[in-house]
Amino acid sequence: MRDVAVLGVGMTKFGELWDRSFREIGIEAGLQAMVEAKLSSGDLGGLFLGNMASGSLIDQEQIAPLILDYAGLGARHLPAVRVEGGGASGSLALHQGYLAVASGLYDFVVVGGAEKLTDVPDVTGNQITSSAADHEWEVVFGATLPALWALIARRHMHQYGTTREQLARVAVHAHEMGSKNPNAHYRNKITIEQVLGAGEVAEPLGMFDCAPLSDGAAAVVLGPLETARKYTDQPIRIAASQVACDTMAVQHRRDVTTLDSTVVAARRAFEQAHRAPADVRVAEIHDAYTISALVSLEDLGFSEKGHAGPDFEAGRFGAKGDVAVNMSGGLKAQGAPFGAVGVAQVVELVRQLRGQAKDRQVADARLALAQDVGGTGATSVVTLLERAD
Amino acid sequence: MRDVAVLGVGMTKFGELWDRSFREIGIEAGLQAMVEAKLSSGDLGGLFLGNMASGSLIDQEQIAPLILDYAGLGARHLPAVRVEGGGASGSLALHQGYLAVASGLYDFVVVGGAEKLTDVPDVTGNQITSSAADHEWEVVFGATLPALWALIARRHMHQYGTTREQLARVAVHAHEMGSKNPNAHYRNKITIEQVLGAGEVAEPLGMFDCAPLSDGAAAVVLGPLETARKYTDQPIRIAASQVACDTMAVQHRRDVTTLDSTVVAARRAFEQAHRAPADVRVAEIHDAYTISALVSLEDLGFSEKGHAGPDFEAGRFGAKGDVAVNMSGGLKAQGAPFGAVGVAQVVELVRQLRGQAKDRQVADARLALAQDVGGTGATSVVTLLERAD
Repeated sequence: MRDVAVLGVGMTKFGELWDRSFREIGIEAGLQAMVEAKLSSGDLGGLFLGNMASGSLIDQEQIAPLILDYAGLGARHLPAVRVEGGGASGSLALHQGYLAVASGLYDFVVVGGAEKLTDVPDVTGNQITSSAADHEWEVVFGATLPALWALIARRHMHQYGTTREQLARVAVHAHEMGSKNPNAHYRNKITIEQVLGAGEVAEPLGMFDCAPLSDGAAAVVLGPLETARKYTDQPIRIAASQVACDTMAVQHRRDVTTLDSTVVAARRAFEQAHRAPADVRVAEIHDAYTISALVSLEDLGFSEKGHAGPDFEAGRFGAKGDVAVNMSGGLKAQGAPFGAVGVAQVVELVRQLRGQAKDRQVADARLALAQDVGGTGATSVVTLLERAD
Repeated sequence: MRDVAVLGVGMTKFGELWDRSFREIGIEAGLQAMVEAKLSSGDLGGLFLGNMASGSLIDQEQIAPLILDYAGLGARHLPAVRVEGGGASGSLALHQGYLAVASGLYDFVVVGGAEKLTDVPDVTGNQITSSAADHEWEVVFGATLPALWALIARRHMHQYGTTREQLARVAVHAHEMGSKNPNAHYRNKITIEQVLGAGEVAEPLGMFDCAPLSDGAAAVVLGPLETARKYTDQPIRIAASQVACDTMAVQHRRDVTTLDSTVVAARRAFEQAHRAPADVRVAEIHDAYTISALVSLEDLGFSEKGHAGPDFEAGRFGAKGDVAVNMSGGLKAQGAPFGAVGVAQVVELVRQLRGQAKDRQVADARLALAQDVGGTGATSVVTLLERAD
């Protein structure tokens, strides 16, 4: 299996991009990544695109060739494949692009993620957001995605003593980092009091405990590590890319406070890379809900089970903590365009590893971890990235 | 890159399966393939699932983990990935499964395709079927998928003298083969006169020129060729798997009577396998519309451009012709559950290569070709399969 490197990254601003279409934001991110990788369209071997719900959102399937077409590459007849796994669609596309290059059948590929959520009706209702939950066992009974995460939060509070304030701190951290990120959907800082005082979405989760619906796109160029230095002075090696799944319905899990898909994907990823959680200096994790960040930190091995709340309060996950988490602002502040999220995580981590993250740069980062989650954890993807210079 | 083999195949009956859910038919096909491959769930490394429109059709995304879950494998936390490219979704999933095994990161995987079309509203309208066409350039102006193929047919008739009767012959052949296939949606034979006399869908295409909307699922087990003989006496090697794309909108193509995506995918596939069209004895091709079969035969290299009509009339594509085409009944008679089609093509070809196709068995088949198309040809996937004994 060939070693695979990230040669270039790009992303649009995340937010309410009402003046630009799905295809336009997809192309913007992809071209940025190709320019950064000094890759001409003649070198490109294919596109793997993560997107959750373009069929429901904009009545459009087959969107991978659509993006290639509007990038002016239709006449080159490149392979283009869409990959879907709810909110984990982007990192699943990364996994497929990684396999494509690792296999040797493809040399250089663009992995993109794109989603357009703000200018369509009924995104927040059951029809679209909750289509990543189990329709027959959860959604038909009225459960929405925030409601299911709220159940997980309540149980975590009951079982481990996690407090409402600890949840709130996750959101405060995200907005603080978002304030330093020009691409972030939200750049305003918030306080614990604001989080606690905000309107309820699904008790105990309030408005500031939930990531926004955003438009946005992100892209990375992958290629064989052996030739990466022709394209970049700072190739970033994909040290591991692993996917694991779990039951769709939360009620069917052995423990509702644990994302077994994340536990298993992380274990496989650390095995593949011959590394351990303690080696990771910077991470982007799934904070679509404040509770999802806490359980993820535990299930990735960064906190003991039940301890993520106190660990977060103690500053272990700040910029100068043991693991600097969600320096981008995370899904909460950078934004959460489903299919783009997993790719944007990699964009941030590549910039961190290269020392290009400006105001939010973490010192001495050599190994980074991205964790992307679909729905309530039916899919988890864990990616390890490391400096290859 | 490792050689990849098909170790087992399975499929449900195609048709109006009102008594079974999406998840049930997906599992039925997958378990059949695993039993045939003598593979226990402990050997399984992952699932790649082709599906076009479960989000729009049944309000359910993340369906790859959903299928694993309902197969009782949720607790094993296997990777499960959905792949989408309109009607080519199934063969794109096969491509991803092929890359996964070829890369060495996965050993044994199930590639599945499943779609449930008959028990939901508005499948035939713009909203779902035509979501595989270009929404902004075609669908908003009223073009449906049959209308776009009708434009291609009219131009082919004008440019090459293709006749209405030649189109009809494609449907008659499909139903004749369907009559020999217990899994086929339609098992009734039809006559040229019936095709010509049927109600119009989009002139010149009538009801019998268009494949039905079907429910159905199909699955294959892939593994490394080097260990395949532990599982089967008749491993079938994937000699090539290639994807190519084209503009979404028909009007943007250099020639509306040519599927350049098929031309390029076929050229790449024959190069990968070091073979030529003349080496192929049996093929499953995209006859969602009678015209799509004729242009596909030309673009795959089985007929000269413009000659597929006369060649079909001359019997070159019958069971005893130069290339035996769509012995399964094709999309027209076996049925067309979007995401399952490309996988079902491989199921039929594997049975042909093993000599297990009973009444529709083609003599001396050693090399087989599958061609799967999304929409009007924005995506084409060409797969070459050969006996490895």
